[in-house]
Amino acid sequence: MRRSIATVCLSGTLEDKLEAAAQAGFDEVELFEPDLIASALCPEEVREHAAELGLTIGLYQPFRDFEAVPEAQLRDNLRRAEHKFAVMQRLGADRMLVCSSVSGDAVDEDGLAAAQLRTLAEDAADHGIRIAYEALAWGRHIRDYERAWRIVEAADHPALGICLDSFHILSRGTDPAGIRQVPGEKIFHVQLADAPHLVMDVLQWSRHYRCFPGQGGFDLPTFVQHVCATGYAGPLSLEVFNDVFRQADPRRMAVDAMRSLLLLEEASGITALPTAQPLRGYAFVELAVAAEAAAPVERLLVSMGFRHAGQHRSKPVQLWRHGDTRILVNHDDNGGKPGPRVAAIGVESAAPIRSAERAQRLLAPPLARDRGPGEAELSAIAAPDGTAVFFCRTDDSDAGAWLGDFLTAGPPGGGVSADVTGIDHVALSQPFDFFDEAALFYRSVLGLELQTADELATPDGLVRSRAARAADGDVRFALSVPLVGTDGFDLQHVALASDDVLATAQAMRARGVPLLKIPDNYYDDLRARTHLGPETLERMRDLRVLYDATDDGELFHVYTEMVGPGLCLELLERRGGYDGYGAANSPVRIAAQRAAGRAAARA
Amino acid sequence: MRRSIATVCLSGTLEDKLEAAAQAGFDEVELFEPDLIASALCPEEVREHAAELGLTIGLYQPFRDFEAVPEAQLRDNLRRAEHKFAVMQRLGADRMLVCSSVSGDAVDEDGLAAAQLRTLAEDAADHGIRIAYEALAWGRHIRDYERAWRIVEAADHPALGICLDSFHILSRGTDPAGIRQVPGEKIFHVQLADAPHLVMDVLQWSRHYRCFPGQGGFDLPTFVQHVCATGYAGPLSLEVFNDVFRQADPRRMAVDAMRSLLLLEEASGITALPTAQPLRGYAFVELAVAAEAAAPVERLLVSMGFRHAGQHRSKPVQLWRHGDTRILVNHDDNGGKPGPRVAAIGVESAAPIRSAERAQRLLAPPLARDRGPGEAELSAIAAPDGTAVFFCRTDDSDAGAWLGDFLTAGPPGGGVSADVTGIDHVALSQPFDFFDEAALFYRSVLGLELQTADELATPDGLVRSRAARAADGDVRFALSVPLVGTDGFDLQHVALASDDVLATAQAMRARGVPLLKIPDNYYDDLRARTHLGPETLERMRDLRVLYDATDDGELFHVYTEMVGPGLCLELLERRGGYDGYGAANSPVRIAAQRAAGRAAARA
Repeated sequence: MRRSIATVCLSGTLEDKLEAAAQAGFDEVELFEPDLIASALCPEEVREHAAELGLTIGLYQPFRDFEAVPEAQLRDNLRRAEHKFAVMQRLGADRMLVCSSVSGDAVDEDGLAAAQLRTLAEDAADHGIRIAYEALAWGRHIRDYERAWRIVEAADHPALGICLDSFHILSRGTDPAGIRQVPGEKIFHVQLADAPHLVMDVLQWSRHYRCFPGQGGFDLPTFVQHVCATGYAGPLSLEVFNDVFRQADPRRMAVDAMRSLLLLEEASGITALPTAQPLRGYAFVELAVAAEAAAPVERLLVSMGFRHAGQHRSKPVQLWRHGDTRILVNHDDNGGKPGPRVAAIGVESAAPIRSAERAQRLLAPPLARDRGPGEAELSAIAAPDGTAVFFCRTDDSDAGAWLGDFLTAGPPGGGVSADVTGIDHVALSQPFDFFDEAALFYRSVLGLELQTADELATPDGLVRSRAARAADGDVRFALSVPLVGTDGFDLQHVALASDDVLATAQAMRARGVPLLKIPDNYYDDLRARTHLGPETLERMRDLRVLYDATDDGELFHVYTEMVGPGLCLELLERRGGYDGYGAANSPVRIAAQRAAGRAAARA
Repeated sequence: MRRSIATVCLSGTLEDKLEAAAQAGFDEVELFEPDLIASALCPEEVREHAAELGLTIGLYQPFRDFEAVPEAQLRDNLRRAEHKFAVMQRLGADRMLVCSSVSGDAVDEDGLAAAQLRTLAEDAADHGIRIAYEALAWGRHIRDYERAWRIVEAADHPALGICLDSFHILSRGTDPAGIRQVPGEKIFHVQLADAPHLVMDVLQWSRHYRCFPGQGGFDLPTFVQHVCATGYAGPLSLEVFNDVFRQADPRRMAVDAMRSLLLLEEASGITALPTAQPLRGYAFVELAVAAEAAAPVERLLVSMGFRHAGQHRSKPVQLWRHGDTRILVNHDDNGGKPGPRVAAIGVESAAPIRSAERAQRLLAPPLARDRGPGEAELSAIAAPDGTAVFFCRTDDSDAGAWLGDFLTAGPPGGGVSADVTGIDHVALSQPFDFFDEAALFYRSVLGLELQTADELATPDGLVRSRAARAADGDVRFALSVPLVGTDGFDLQHVALASDDVLATAQAMRARGVPLLKIPDNYYDDLRARTHLGPETLERMRDLRVLYDATDDGELFHVYTEMVGPGLCLELLERRGGYDGYGAANSPVRIAAQRAAGRAAARA
């Protein structure tokens, strides 16, 4: 099936949008009329530019408030359509989207609607144009696709069909299975959008909060399967109105859009991609820090029981180990940023080459790497925020494996607090307009599952947070972003797992690990709202351990003080089936981090 | 009545919030529990810090899900309350807000709710604390204040009263007149919030879109009058949850909050302020531009028929005139910014000193000005975005008036296109988190009326726009801001009025005024959707004149090309009762400006 995107999904000028869509590999675009009207290009130039880019202009949209009106209004509407047909011919667009009327002039009479749409279709056919009639979820009379289809069926004209829009159908809770009753050749266009489940006026929901398939809460694979069952042979087209996407880099957004469509096609059984490989934990997390800023990082790692166990053969990269938990410290110049920052993450893939193939098919940008003679070939891609993701298969005994690139510098660490059992998750704040894109990236490229989104009140404002994890929980990413505005939130942490966080925190503190100071008020509140025993609570207060509980289990966790401007380590212990990240504690934790940051700035 | 603000209205740490509230002149604060829990200050320190700042901690909030529960749950809830009473005593807070339960455990039995609230009130009284019971708009059973009051009345305990929250009452469309039936001494607290009219789930509306009184759509003066009619003697307290306010500078927000409360008190007849003086047009608009960047501005003014008519006695400021339309060009160093930017606006006040007094009472920051000997004393204040606002009374014959500070350099301009009749409005883009504040500033300080807000789709993303104007339309400000994100929108223009914009534009073009190029596609669309005659349309296309129409009248307007990075002039003609600003054309106009900007950058 052809792949299409509405120009309204992307920001910038019409040229920007077309170029971005073409570069991302789309076959055609829906031209959103305001984009044409605001463009200095005349329709012929738009057509030519699109053609040069290898794009078809398929659908022209929207044509509003046409049907079921009194005779005088109909004449006016047909005149208006004639003008638009002329524009479409100059553009080379062959389908016009007519949305069901929202006008007070429209009467509730399907027969009249059908007759007038037939007239419109006759006029359109004279220009070689076909009309795709769409039921808007907030149409005055016509709000669902079944009724739109009955009208189109009654009008019975070859140049009149329907347009199916997943948002308009699924947002109303309409059963999409009825799509299967429509002959595929009468479906002239299919528009796809996902959306989070929100309780708000559907118009507002539609205009501001749509997102690309796989970023929201709709079951779009089933929707697409229903469409395919009809024999529909037209394009799958993305039509997404989103406040954030509208102002993001259109080239990035177009790639994100294409990735979402490929993932949807895979889930719908239309397109086969290299299978996502199971991820079995972390090979390493790499911190980038300038050599002159590295001392606090090294001190922290030593005091936590890590040991400098290896040195890269050709790069200024140290391997630090705590048993099988590995942190790389990279002193390479990171564009002049002192750091420390999480620069790369190595995930354990059952088949790294297959993982890399999938990433490539899903348009993940590959990272070029300098490789010394005899060094392992590692596949690396860039996540949307620039973090490098490596697919590894760690095997000490395999000379070709990545660990072989490190010369042994000493025995692995551990022992001091041997109950650090690995890396639980990595928490990364995202640039403002990268959030949905990042979630989709981890979901599609790494094959992770998205968890529910949270909203946290921090001293810097509201923060959205969402996590993605492997099915068995061995790999987890916690993403966060300011809810509005672009500034002021830039925190990362690496969370280490422990079997007994109280014991580990105590041992670490004894060895000089600086633990983040949590206010006493927090523990007074815990005492009021939980049934934790006084001794446990007192120990938690002493060690600054935070607590969360759900029906599934409990979380005990503690943070180190920040090393550098935006990074710290976390130690956590999951009890029972606790599957979250302590989001309820984030306001307190972030306030404490900000306070510590200000105190450090004053010192 | 005492003035109070909830800490949740402001961003930053608890200390930041308290300091901001105190500086803005509040008497007390409502302490929002999460702010305490995240604070490193213990309750005694919070109390002490507040006291040093001259603030009382009045209400502690929220205590949730208390009433109408089974016995075992009640014991748990009372235990939880005991903990909080202890915290409140340490804080010195004398009222606890109990919101109606949203829990599934609560039963729909007012008698049980009353009995349990009475028990709670008995416990509270032992600690010298009073309980203010509030009906949440989304409470499980108790959603309106009348029912909350019936429960409180039935419970009949001196330490139990109600809390009235304007949001919870007005958002549900409940008639607030019933408040008058409640004895004032049983109203323990009053929380005020405004909100735009939105159709969405009320919880979501409440959590994200509240705003300060006067910034939204609620009739709060009537609400407050009802409250006062009861004899209520407690504080008027602002409780506003707003995504943008949460991340703005808390000192600025606290001043904004206080200004909104003063305006509300004035409108409710509680507090008298110096009356807003009628504004009778513009004395001048002042552009700041570095001398080396001034040539394009001067060229534009000359070609539009302005003349350099005066030179300031002591400052590098030129007076340009087109008849009685005055533009000042200031070559003073503007913090190193080349400009041109709108730096100041002079409005004609019937009584400038009274205007300045009102501004001062409403906490508008006065601007210190260097004044040469014998120069006029002008009252200037800073608008939220830093634009200076001068209150003037222009009178050529009065030696003490501001025009006397300018040495005559030549005759006033005009003639070429004498039908420039004055300044119609000034359009200013606002920093992201200044928008509601700016609207309230112009409304309260200048006594303007706010017009409906619009949302515009521009190539840079969605933009909110809202205008404020004098009742007779002689002074108008059009404000705009990006809907999300903080970057990318920074356009200003000064709009000049004309009686015949087509003739004026033609004359100006002949004199070399560069008019902004509007795409032909725009005129093709106008032809399709309006009944403008072909000759008029052709002339408009030729001159790049834009068009808008409402039921009240029509607008014809045209823009010059940008001079510098973000400024242009507009010429407009209002026909009939047209009262808008051509917002429908903004997407096209802004796209054209961006295109011109890019073309200039390439050249």
